[in-house]
Amino acid sequence: MIKIATAECFTHGKIGRELHAIAQGYTGNFGRDYVENPESYGNFNYNELSVICSLFIPTIEAVKSVLQIENPPEPTTLIKGIKCYNEAEDKKVSKIMAEAVKKITDCDIAIGTTAGIGRGGISIVTNDYTIITTSDIASDLRENNSEELFQRQENGIEKCVKILLFLLNDDFDSIESMNNIKIIEK
Amino acid sequence: MIKIATAECFTHGKIGRELHAIAQGYTGNFGRDYVENPESYGNFNYNELSVICSLFIPTIEAVKSVLQIENPPEPTTLIKGIKCYNEAEDKKVSKIMAEAVKKITDCDIAIGTTAGIGRGGISIVTNDYTIITTSDIASDLRENNSEELFQRQENGIEKCVKILLFLLNDDFDSIESMNNIKIIEK
Repeated sequence: MIKIATAECFTHGKIGRELHAIAQGYTGNFGRDYVENPESYGNFNYNELSVICSLFIPTIEAVKSVLQIENPPEPTTLIKGIKCYNEAEDKKVSKIMAEAVKKITDCDIAIGTTAGIGRGGISIVTNDYTIITTSDIASDLRENNSEELFQRQENGIEKCVKILLFLLNDDFDSIESMNNIKIIEK
Repeated sequence: MIKIATAECFTHGKIGRELHAIAQGYTGNFGRDYVENPESYGNFNYNELSVICSLFIPTIEAVKSVLQIENPPEPTTLIKGIKCYNEAEDKKVSKIMAEAVKKITDCDIAIGTTAGIGRGGISIVTNDYTIITTSDIASDLRENNSEELFQRQENGIEKCVKILLFLLNDDFDSIESMNNIKIIEK
C-alpha cells in the first residue's frame, strides 16, 4: 500500500480528495473532478493507494498547532489569520508543510501547497525525492479576486494530481516535461 | 473573531471549505456550493468568522496521528485503513473527533463527522454546547455505492452548515426543529 497525506492551503484539500476518490474507485457524482482516466497514466494499481488524510490548513495558527511547525517563516501579511507569502517563500513553506505532514503520519508520499502572492508553491516529498513546482497562474490573495484565485487553484490541483499519477507510474520524463519543475534526489 | 475547525470523514472537509468561502466572502466559481445566501440566517457578521483548518481524516491511522486520539473506539471494520463504524458509534466518534480538533486548535466551534453503516454522526462542540445529529440518508461504506455515499455526504454537509449558521445567529429554535437533534448544555 502506498500511503499519501496532504497539507494544503490554496488547493483547499482537493488534491487529497481527488486521490482518495481514485484510490477508492468512486464513480459518477462521487467520482473524480480532475482526472477522468487515471489508468491512462500507466500500470499502477490504484487499489494499492491509500489517502491517510487531506488537511486544509489556511491559517498560520493551524500550521503551528496541527502541523506542529514551531517556527514557520514569517508571512508577508496575515489576512484574518491566513498566511500570505510571496512565491519564493510559498515554495519553501509548501515543502515545510509536506515534510511536517509526512513526519506526523509516516506516509510514503506527502504533498504541501500554499499560495499568497504569485503562482504559489507545490511540494511533493517521498523518501527518495522532493519535487517542487508552482501552479501556472499568478494571483494575489490580498486582492481577494475570487475568479483569479479559483483559476490558480484549479490549475494547481490539476498539475499536482498529474505529477502524482506520473510519480506512481515511475514516469519522471513526463514530470520533467512540465513547467517549472525542480526535482531533488535525496 | 469566531474560530472554527473541522475534523471530517464522510463530508470530506467540505463543511470547513464552505464555511471558509462564507468567511472570506468568495463569490462565483470560488463561492458557496451549499449556501447561497448566508445573510438570510440572521444578523451575524460573517467577516467575524475564521476557519482555522478543515481536516479530512478518513483513516484510523490519522485519527491517532493527526487528531492525537490515543485509543479511538474499535471500528466495526477497516476498508483500506478507513474506519467504518455503525451509527451509534459514529455519533460518539464524531464527538471525539470534534473535541480533539478543538483541543489541538483552541477554536471556538469544532465540528466532527464520520459515517460508516447508517446515517453517520455529526457533532458540533462549543464551549457551552455539544450538538449531536446524523445525516438524514443511510448508506453503508462497505457496499461502496458511490451515488448513495454521495447523497449521504451532500445531505450531511448541508445539514451541518445550516446548524452552524443557525448557531452563529443564536437561533436554537431552528436547530431544534431539524431531524434527530440532541443538544447538550454544559
